[in-house]
Parts: sequence; structure tokens; C-alpha cells
Amino acid sequence: MARKIRIGMIGYGQMGRIHAYAYRSIPLFYDPLPFEPVLAAVADVMPGAADKAVRQAGFAQGTSDWRRVVESPDVDVVDICTPNADHLPVLEAAIAAGKAIYCEKPLCTNLQEAEAILAAARRAGIAHQIVAEYRFLPALLRARQLVADGFVGDVFHFRGLYLHSGYVDPARPISWRLRREATGGGVLMDLGPHVIDLMRYLVGDAAQVRGHIHTFIHRRPLADRPGEMGDVDVEDAAQAQLELRRGGVGSIEVSRCATGAEDELRLEVHGSRGALSFNLMDPNWLYTYDATAPEAERGFRRLATVQRYPAPAVAPAPKFSIGWTRAHVAAQFAFLGALAAERAPEPSFVDAVAAHAHIDAIYRSVASGVAEAVPEVR
Amino acid sequence: MARKIRIGMIGYGQMGRIHAYAYRSIPLFYDPLPFEPVLAAVADVMPGAADKAVRQAGFAQGTSDWRRVVESPDVDVVDICTPNADHLPVLEAAIAAGKAIYCEKPLCTNLQEAEAILAAARRAGIAHQIVAEYRFLPALLRARQLVADGFVGDVFHFRGLYLHSGYVDPARPISWRLRREATGGGVLMDLGPHVIDLMRYLVGDAAQVRGHIHTFIHRRPLADRPGEMGDVDVEDAAQAQLELRRGGVGSIEVSRCATGAEDELRLEVHGSRGALSFNLMDPNWLYTYDATAPEAERGFRRLATVQRYPAPAVAPAPKFSIGWTRAHVAAQFAFLGALAAERAPEPSFVDAVAAHAHIDAIYRSVASGVAEAVPEVR
Amino acid sequence: MARKIRIGMIGYGQMGRIHAYAYRSIPLFYDPLPFEPVLAAVADVMPGAADKAVRQAGFAQGTSDWRRVVESPDVDVVDICTPNADHLPVLEAAIAAGKAIYCEKPLCTNLQEAEAILAAARRAGIAHQIVAEYRFLPALLRARQLVADGFVGDVFHFRGLYLHSGYVDPARPISWRLRREATGGGVLMDLGPHVIDLMRYLVGDAAQVRGHIHTFIHRRPLADRPGEMGDVDVEDAAQAQLELRRGGVGSIEVSRCATGAEDELRLEVHGSRGALSFNLMDPNWLYTYDATAPEAERGFRRLATVQRYPAPAVAPAPKFSIGWTRAHVAAQFAFLGALAAERAPEPSFVDAVAAHAHIDAIYRSVASGVAEAVPEVR
Amino acid sequence: MARKIRIGMIGYGQMGRIHAYAYRSIPLFYDPLPFEPVLAAVADVMPGAADKAVRQAGFAQGTSDWRRVVESPDVDVVDICTPNADHLPVLEAAIAAGKAIYCEKPLCTNLQEAEAILAAARRAGIAHQIVAEYRFLPALLRARQLVADGFVGDVFHFRGLYLHSGYVDPARPISWRLRREATGGGVLMDLGPHVIDLMRYLVGDAAQVRGHIHTFIHRRPLADRPGEMGDVDVEDAAQAQLELRRGGVGSIEVSRCATGAEDELRLEVHGSRGALSFNLMDPNWLYTYDATAPEAERGFRRLATVQRYPAPAVAPAPKFSIGWTRAHVAAQFAFLGALAAERAPEPSFVDAVAAHAHIDAIYRSVASGVAEAVPEVR
Repeated sequence: MARKIRIGMIGYGQMGRIHAYAYRSIPLFYDPLPFEPVLAAVADVMPGAADKAVRQAGFAQGTSDWRRVVESPDVDVVDICTPNADHLPVLEAAIAAGKAIYCEKPLCTNLQEAEAILAAARRAGIAHQIVAEYRFLPALLRARQLVADGFVGDVFHFRGLYLHSGYVDPARPISWRLRREATGGGVLMDLGPHVIDLMRYLVGDAAQVRGHIHTFIHRRPLADRPGEMGDVDVEDAAQAQLELRRGGVGSIEVSRCATGAEDELRLEVHGSRGALSFNLMDPNWLYTYDATAPEAERGFRRLATVQRYPAPAVAPAPKFSIGWTRAHVAAQFAFLGALAAERAPEPSFVDAVAAHAHIDAIYRSVASGVAEAVPEVR
Repeated sequence: MARKIRIGMIGYGQMGRIHAYAYRSIPLFYDPLPFEPVLAAVADVMPGAADKAVRQAGFAQGTSDWRRVVESPDVDVVDICTPNADHLPVLEAAIAAGKAIYCEKPLCTNLQEAEAILAAARRAGIAHQIVAEYRFLPALLRARQLVADGFVGDVFHFRGLYLHSGYVDPARPISWRLRREATGGGVLMDLGPHVIDLMRYLVGDAAQVRGHIHTFIHRRPLADRPGEMGDVDVEDAAQAQLELRRGGVGSIEVSRCATGAEDELRLEVHGSRGALSFNLMDPNWLYTYDATAPEAERGFRRLATVQRYPAPAVAPAPKFSIGWTRAHVAAQFAFLGALAAERAPEPSFVDAVAAHAHIDAIYRSVASGVAEAVPEVR
Repeated sequence: MARKIRIGMIGYGQMGRIHAYAYRSIPLFYDPLPFEPVLAAVADVMPGAADKAVRQAGFAQGTSDWRRVVESPDVDVVDICTPNADHLPVLEAAIAAGKAIYCEKPLCTNLQEAEAILAAARRAGIAHQIVAEYRFLPALLRARQLVADGFVGDVFHFRGLYLHSGYVDPARPISWRLRREATGGGVLMDLGPHVIDLMRYLVGDAAQVRGHIHTFIHRRPLADRPGEMGDVDVEDAAQAQLELRRGGVGSIEVSRCATGAEDELRLEVHGSRGALSFNLMDPNWLYTYDATAPEAERGFRRLATVQRYPAPAVAPAPKFSIGWTRAHVAAQFAFLGALAAERAPEPSFVDAVAAHAHIDAIYRSVASGVAEAVPEVR
Repeated sequence: MARKIRIGMIGYGQMGRIHAYAYRSIPLFYDPLPFEPVLAAVADVMPGAADKAVRQAGFAQGTSDWRRVVESPDVDVVDICTPNADHLPVLEAAIAAGKAIYCEKPLCTNLQEAEAILAAARRAGIAHQIVAEYRFLPALLRARQLVADGFVGDVFHFRGLYLHSGYVDPARPISWRLRREATGGGVLMDLGPHVIDLMRYLVGDAAQVRGHIHTFIHRRPLADRPGEMGDVDVEDAAQAQLELRRGGVGSIEVSRCATGAEDELRLEVHGSRGALSFNLMDPNWLYTYDATAPEAERGFRRLATVQRYPAPAVAPAPKFSIGWTRAHVAAQFAFLGALAAERAPEPSFVDAVAAHAHIDAIYRSVASGVAEAVPEVR
């Protein structure tokens, strides 16, 4: 009989619903399954939201009081899906309660808070994973393995872009994502963690960064006060030049005003022996280039990674096209599988703190005008 | 309180698992949901399969006796996921029991059986839908709407290919898919229904066809008798030239030996005013060409249909990449939604019979060597 | 001192100008060059056309009387760029005069004439090449070599499409291309020779064909009689199903009404060991798939054939993007190089007759309604 | 009778040959042609090079003494195709001789020299054009026009990359391109002028830059001393973050070690109303996104700019694929056409100096570690 792992979710908005979907899908995608995910409890402060979660996703119980979920003896895992600034108290309470934690990115709203949470989690000895779901796409699992196998050789270039277009329209009102007090930063705090995590996953940390940020639209309508405008106090776009710790250079760019982009996460690595390329809007394929092949046989190869997902993934669909939600299923499988096996989950809050360390260094560089070092996080 | 719709599934192999996944996912993708899908019962003759379905998907009960599911008073819908030749008795029993039916393609193993089933279903007044899930991909919903709105004008050309590569290796043993008695035909019976359904969905029926079939590998190992070979008695590839009932010409090609193909379903329509193009391995986009635009502005446009899925689809992921399984969720939502609203589901067994009528005409043309008419199915 | 080869061109329309461009470009693309192309004479019946050719391309002399060019002692090669139906008398005269011939496709307007020309050319012992320039694109030279090396193994499928959209607009007047008396046929006579030649080049002849043709727009304006309409007596689109002589099946499709197409020549080959894919609108790349690679390494590879053009091509541009005109330069280099080396040029009128034999069989199949054999041409 | 324009070329290496090819091709691509290009003279110091140019390209005379060409009364235009550091004396002499000048990029090896040359050219009143041929690709002509028409609105992002892979192999010896004394800089001096010119052409100058450069391979074999290694004293890769003068931000990246790249020039512009995208390895298409279209109709459109080249370009090939060399033909046509019409050619040495000003600012930023202003060049 597989061990039951009982999940208590905090926050049932867009991300909460996706997490719930993914937990429910795990048993259909993996077989055998060394654990049984149970949607034990859900909390959301919005009136009706917890009831909806119970109805839609089948949580055993719902409440508007997140502390009840965090502290419930019927909950093994706290899954945090609230806006950024609300993570901290939940994290603290979950650590205090000795729960395993699965937390949406960014872990906190700044590096200092994140470091404190990591320290507390370590002291408490709890298991923790940051949501960095793209690591678990077959194409990127494959990319990681190729890098580890020496396929790209010494890394010359890393290029990571994450481009959205949701805020191109100046008539779009200010959401919580555009308020520093709720987020700790702009697009760099929102999309940055993904691209930084994938950089670290594939080619390691940056040692030094030079950052630049920009806000294109400084005033927007206030959603709750018709006819009034408010100030946007976070950036719409950010760039960084990188020196990688293992050698080589790189760049990161994130934007909410990249007109024409849907969910455009692009990764490229060029190395002494090969190259890799990936685009999240074409998620079924990893493009690989083997520079050690005879010259007449060189070229980017489109690997159908979807068909060759590492074990133990099974159906549905070992060979068919997959989309974004698939990554969440795999990330949660990895997390719950680690819990079941009593291994430390990965990526953990260490990785989350490392992402914060990069973001922090980029913001510092913006402020200082010069390159700033990224401290090593262990 | 949304009406419960209780599903009884017959056959829990690869397709059964995908159907189960999709039923479980519906509540997370659509809101509000005018019904509540309940996984009431499952039957599979393979030892342990029904238990596995109960465990993986949460069916309330499992059995090896499909008649118990079909006849159960706790079941509203019979979902048929068995190999082709096993559909017929289940269909007959389900019709006799007055159940709504959701049946995998092809409906039967030949036109005559399919016609009889349609007649019986009509007499019984039951609701029925054939699984033609690709219709429900956002890109193809959009394509259909564009054609209906006159975007392509008079159709000149339709081109439909469905290419797999699973049987390129001659060492792959004979599966049930390569035995006529289990299937009624080869790749045309297997992949043909999809591409014919999409042709009909987008540009209507063919009036006349010229068919050609081919088997590349005539003998393969027998899975159950090591060292022995058996005859393949179905085709590996089929082509048809088409004259469309509404005017214009077309072609269909299906293969299991299209080396390099993963799940390559390609559709193209060229008309007097515009053109459309789609590829299932790039499922997030519909390519459209407006020939009525000023010349300097003409070009194929990549519509991000994923972002603009027709209501009432909601999250997860109104804007992110989707994959193949998403189509099953949408197809089942359409079916159950029709039941809840007491509308006739679509595509129905009428569409299934029409697909059989095309397949039958292609096989007749292969036999006669001349063009054969496709009877109208109403 | 390299041998001078003196070219006499008959017809200086669009194709004549391209041929002239290509002759002039050869010395800049190949080094060392074993011959020196000389633009010796040009004839065109249109008033002013020959003068224009002299001015634009630097022909040494121009005339409206093509016989003077064909019979001139200052001409070694007759290059025929007239409309189809005008090829025959020029071919006959050039053969009679013992000139080497470089003739635009299709060689004649039907198989019988073509066979007679081939016989006459053989009797006269002249050198001859048909213009089938796409063979000489680096990507297709590479494709040919890969097939010869066994890369694709036994051919399962060949797919060749050549799609144009120039006649989608019903207001486009009847040109000579839409008059049977000037062409001998419709789009199959126009675009068919290219795709048939490339099929033969890559996978050999068809043994048997099933054809279908269609005219979408039956009446069009008459260019020379404003307000009047005329009948179109040739097809706008043609398809053929093929059985290949070496085994395997195939299909060909050509159209002038493929809305959205520019110059869309697509080729695909699937075989027991690998696959190839090419598109003329993306001419710098050949896509190759090696089915013998370990499964985790399989995928279509985009070979940058432009960079690895077989010797002795040199600059300009061994690594940069190339376009359609490049193929003409290479085809003429091959022709003149063969003359200089006293080798038989390839593709010759034998290949031209073989293309006619396929076209003839397709038209016969259209008429008979059944499959027709393609005679072997040697 | 069209005016003869007599060209004297200095340097007949790879670029000289391409220029010669292009001059010879102009009359075949443009009709009517308001001038007649004449290949009057060529100089190259390498033994035999000038003779080869006479033989290959048909120059009327060749010499090893470039001064004789520059000062010849039979030469109207001096075309400079030597390595960078050799431009300066030729430029000075050509200005002194009052010749029109067509000069390969970069104009000089640093900003100061370039400014002096511009000043001298202005004093002398000569006509001058810098070779920035990509401006003249149909796709980029169209892009420029779209930006001018307001299609993209306010520019948010510009992204320009020019990636080569020629120096990935550490066994490749040091060429003149890797010696600062011959070039004035590394890849930024070599590929930078192209991407900077296109940035300026499409979205205007940068006001401020933050630069970063890197050398991956510091020692390489010496070509002329077998077994010995030498130091590379220029960068292999460079990046810049940009603030655009008209608002918006951007980035530039150039590399010679971008494994897998052939001739990968990528441009992207995102603005308040639309977006543009281009890739030189796919040169027939411009991708455009109209953010003002109704939401359901938005998507990147692939414009077949090749077919709709602005007048007066004619054949060969108004609709067929083109390659890199086509841009040179168009650039020279623009230059000679301006001379014939007695208009000031564009892009001129002003543009060349502006490119140097950006490069200079990037190098200054690398040295200072902070952002540096780009002076306006008029």
C-alpha cells in the first residue's frame, strides 16, 4: 500500500488550481507510484475560494484561515500558492509546524527574508522544494543530462529570455504584480526566478552581473477607483550581463512588454563541443548541435524529448505533444517521490535563495551602475 | 448543485487511462461547470487492470465483467476504450441498456456494422459521441470557425496527413493493430478516422475517392511465439485522392512507417480567399493566410489560439502551451456538457459512420482500381 | 588558357535573363574554372528584346532571327529559353547544326516529340542538358549523396509537392501558360518536370501512377480583348499516387492555386534507415533523420548544406544563405564543365524524356481512370 | 544612353570578389537602369590577385599598386575591400583624388580616424557610402518602412544578435581578424557594425551603453610558424545593454564562438503597437505582429518580402528565395543610382562614424565599468 501524502494548499487562485490539477493527474502519469497524493485541505482568504477548491479539486476540507491548514495534523505538506509577499508568514508557520513545504517562486520578496527562511527550514529539518517546474520538462531534463555528460563541453555562452506581453496595453490596470509592496520587485522578481533557475540548472551560477531595468508605462488605471490613475513602482523589463562561475558569459532578459510574445521562454547554450536551444512555446523539442560530429553532419537536431521522457514516466502520451501543465505534474511527482523515499527534494530552498541572490545582485548593479558579485549560496 | 454524470468505462489500457485523466481534469479547466463527472465503474478483462484503474483514477468500483458496468444502474455513460473489434458487443449492450455512449474511434471494424449501430442508437434515442478529440483543440476550433466565416472562401485544396513511425522497425512484433480480425483494417482504420473527421469538420465530405494502400513489411515476429514469424494482413500506409462534395480536391495520407514522424498530423486548406495550416506536433498555433489583404501585408500568420480558447474554458493556462491530452479534456467537456444541457452531442455516431463510409470507399477503390463514390451519411 | 565556350541564347524573357545572370556569375563562384563562358549571341522575336539582352547581359550580338544564332559558327551552345511549344523547331535546328544544347524544361509539349528529339540528339552525337537546376542546390546534392550512401535505406515514402499561388485570382488573364497549344498541358507540364526530376534524382522512377487533375477557374479575362473572357483548357492542379520502381510508394502534387504558397517545393523521403526533408523556401537547409542512431539521439537535423557545398564551389559565400538563382549558376557550371571535360552532361534529354514519360502516364491515368504504367526510359 | 560609372576596386579577396559579382549582376536585376557599371580597374598587393580579378570579373586592368587605381582618370568610384587597417590610406588618397567612395565596414579602426575621414570627405565634397548591405534586403527595407509608418509604435525593446561560430575550434590559427593592429578590435569591430547599423536603421541611435567583452580562447596557433602559439589580443564575444535615444531599451550581442551558428543575424523589435522579427538565415521573410488587430487575429505574420521587393527591382526572381549576395547587388544599385541621380548616397560615412561611436562607447564602458554615453553623430 503506497504511503499517503496529505497536501494542504494555501491560496487557490490561478496557481493553486494548476497545482491541484497536477496532484490529481500524477497517478495517471506515473506507474507504479510509490505514494498516494491526497488533497487534504485548502485555505484561501477570498470569500468562496476555498469552497470552490473543494468542489473543483476535491480537497477534503476548505477554510479561509490558512493557519488551520498549516497546523492541521491531517496535513503533511504545505503547498504555498499565494502572492509573493504573503509567503513569509505561511513559510514561518509551516516550518514551525514541521511540515514539508512546496512553495511557489519567488520564495520571498528579497534575499534577506529568503536566507532567514532557508536557515529556519534547515534548523527545523523539514523537506522543502521551490516550484521551478520547467526543470522537469522532458526537453530540459534531457538538456541537463547532456550538459552533465559533457555534450556542450566548456560553456561559452548562456542566453536566457523570458518574454511576456501582458502589460503592453497601457489601459491594463495596476494588479498586485505591479505593486512593490506585494512583490518585492517587478518582472525580474516574477519571471526572473524561472530563467535564473534554468541557467543554474544547466550551466551553474553567475559570479558577477551587470543589470539594467526599465519601466515603459509609469502610470496605469487603478482597478478599484474608476477614472483614477496610479504609479507603477516596479520595472517592466530587466536585463543582465553575466559572467558565469564556471567560465563563459551570458545574458538574461525578462519583460512584460515584449509585444507579440505569449509565454516565450528561450534558452540557448553554446559550448566548446556543442550547443543547445529550447523554447517553451515549442516545448516538445530540444535542439542540440554536436560540434564534434564530422563537418558534413553538423546541424541542429530537433530531439523529440517528449517521446523519451526518463523513467518512470508513463502514459498518457509517451510520444505525443505536451504543454506547460505537464511540467507541474512532473515537478510535484519529483517532490512527493522524494518525500516518499525520504530523500531531500530538489530544487530546494537553497535554489530559491540562489535565485534571490542573483536578483539581488542585479538590482544592486542597477543601483550602483557597476558590476556586482553574486554570493555563492550553499 | 450540478448534475452528477456517472461514467462507466470499458477497457483501461492506454486510452482508458487518458480518458480517466481527462475526466478528472475537467473540473480544473472549466468554471462554472454545469455537471459533475463521477468515475463510477470500470471494467477490463485483463487481470488486475480494473483494480489498477480504481487505484490510479479513483473509479468507485472495478470488475472484469464489462456487462456489469454497462448494465449498472449507477452508470449514465458508457465510455468504450477497447480494441476496435470489441466495440460492437459493448455498443449493442449499451444501446440496449439505454446508456449514453462515448466511443473511441473507429466506431466499428466496417461500414455495415457502424450503420447498424447508428440505426440502433437512433431507435433507442440514446446520446452518443465518437472520440474525435482533435476537433476540440483551440487551433482547430478556430480553424472551423474561420472556414464557417468564409475566411478561406471556396475550397481549392485540402491536404491531410497523419504520419507515425512506430512500425518502421521490422523487429517490432505483430500487435493487435496489425491483425485484421482485431481491427478491420490497417493504418487507414487506425489513423484514417482522425484525418477524415478533420477533413469533414473543416471542408466537408468527399464525393469520390481514389485509394492506394501498401504494406512495407509483410512478416514480423510473433510476440507470443519466440523465434516465429507471422504474416501482417493489413496495410502500413494508405493514400487517397479526393473530390470534395462542395468542390475542390484533396488528398489524405496515413502511414505507420513514416520514419522520423512522431505524431505528425498535418492539415492544410487552400481556398479562393485564404489558407489554413496546422500541425499536431506544434499544436499551439494555427497558421492563417488572408489572400484578401493588400499584397504587401500577405503572409501566413501564426495565431496563438491557445490564448484565445473559446469560452467557457478557463485555467489552467489560457495562454500557455498545451499538448495532446488537452484535446481529450475538451472533447469530454463537450460531451458531458451536451448531456447536461440535453443537447445532442457532436461529433456523433453519424460522424463515425461517415468516417467509415470514406474508409470503405477508399478500400473499394483499392480493390476496383477506379474512383469510388462516397455515399452521403445523414 | 581556359577554353572559351560560346553561348547562343534563344528567348530573352524572364528565364533568359536568369540564364544570362548565371553565366555571368559562374567565374565569380568557381575557381579555378576550366572554361570561359562567352555570351556570344542572343535571339528574341519580341521587338527590342535582343537589344535589351545585349545591353543588360553583354551578349556580343543580338537578332530577332533565332536561326542565325543556332547556325552561327561563333556559337558552341544553344540555350533555349522560349515558351514550351517553341522549343521543338529550335531543338531540331540546333541538333542539325551540331550544337550542344541547354534547354529549359519541359523539353517538348509531349512525350512523342521528346522521344524524337532524344533520338535525333543521339544520332547527331551532340551534348545536351535539360534545365533541372534544383538538383544543384547544395541541400539536394547532399540529399542525393546521402541516398546513394544508404542513409535512408529502402525507400518507403516519397512525397513531392510544388505549390504556387499565381492563379488564385480569377481576374488574372489567360497567359500562354494557360493555353494548351503553347504548353502541351497545365501545371503538370509546368511544375511537374521539376518535382518528377527530383523524385527520379533521389529515389528513382515510378513504375505506375494514378493521376487526378482539376481546373478551379474555367474562364478568365482575355489579356488582349478587354472585357472578354476565354476558356482555360489546361489544369490548375494535378496529383499522382506512385508506385516506385525500386519499391515504396509516393505522391506528387502540383498546383497554381495553392493560396499562400510562394515558391513552395517540398520534398520528403522516409526509408527503412532514415528520412530527408527539404523546402525550397528554406533552401539553405536539408533536414535529415537517422533512424539507426540510439533512440535518445534521434531527431531531424538541420544540415547547413550551404556551408559545405561540394568542391569546387568557392565564394561568394561558402557559408551564407543562398537563394534560388544560385541553383542556376551551379547547373550551368555543371553543364559547361562537362563540355570542357568532354563528359556527357547530366541531367540530359534522357532525363527530360523520363519526366515526359511520367507526365504522359499521369495524363493517361486521368483519361483511363485506372493506374497506368510508366515506361522505362534509357 | 545611360551614364557609365567606372569602378576601381582596392582589394580582391573574398569581399572584393563578392562586390565584383554584384556589380556584374546589377544589370540583370534592375530595368531600366539609369547608369552602366564598368569594372575599370582593380588593385591587390597579393601576387596574382589582380590578374585573377581581371580574369574572373572582367576588370579592364589590374595592378598591385592601389595608388594607380585611386588616381586613375578612368576611375569614378573607389571601392575599398581591404582589411580594416588598410582602409585609412586608401580613403585619404581617394578623398584627395576627389573620387566617390564605396567602403567596406568598418570604415576605420577607431572613432577618431573615422571622424577625420568624414570631415575630409565633407570638405572634399565627394559622394560616399559605407557597405551596410543588409539594409537592402527586401525584408529589412520593409521593416524600415513599417517602423516609419508607425507599425510598431513606440519602441520598447530592440534586440540584435550576430552570431558566428568560425573560431570555436582552438586549433584555428590566428588570422588578421584576431590581431588588433589589423582590425582595431575583435568581433565587435567585425560584426558589430552590421548589427549597430541595423539598429540605427530601424530604431535609431543608442544614447547610452553598458558593454561587456570576453575572449574564450587566449592562445592559438600561428599560421606562419608551425608548432608555435600566439596571443589573441581581441575579444571573441561582446554584449551591450542599450538605452535608445528615442526611448526604449535594447541589447546587442556578437560572437565568433556561438557554436552551431552559421551566419545568424537576428533582429527583434517590440513596440507599443507591434513587433518585428528577422533572421538572416531565413532571409526571405519578415515576421510582423500587429498588436492593434482584434485579439483573435493577432499573431506573427511571415511576410514574403522577396515577392514584394520595392521598385525598381525586377527579375531575376521577384518571388523566389534569395540569399545573402542579393543584398550586395541592391546596396550597390542604391549607391550607383544615387551617383547617377546626383543624390547623396545612403548609408554614408556619417552612418559609419555613428557605428564607430557606438563601438567606441561600448569599449569605453568595458574599460570604465559603468554606462557610457554615445555621442550624436551628424
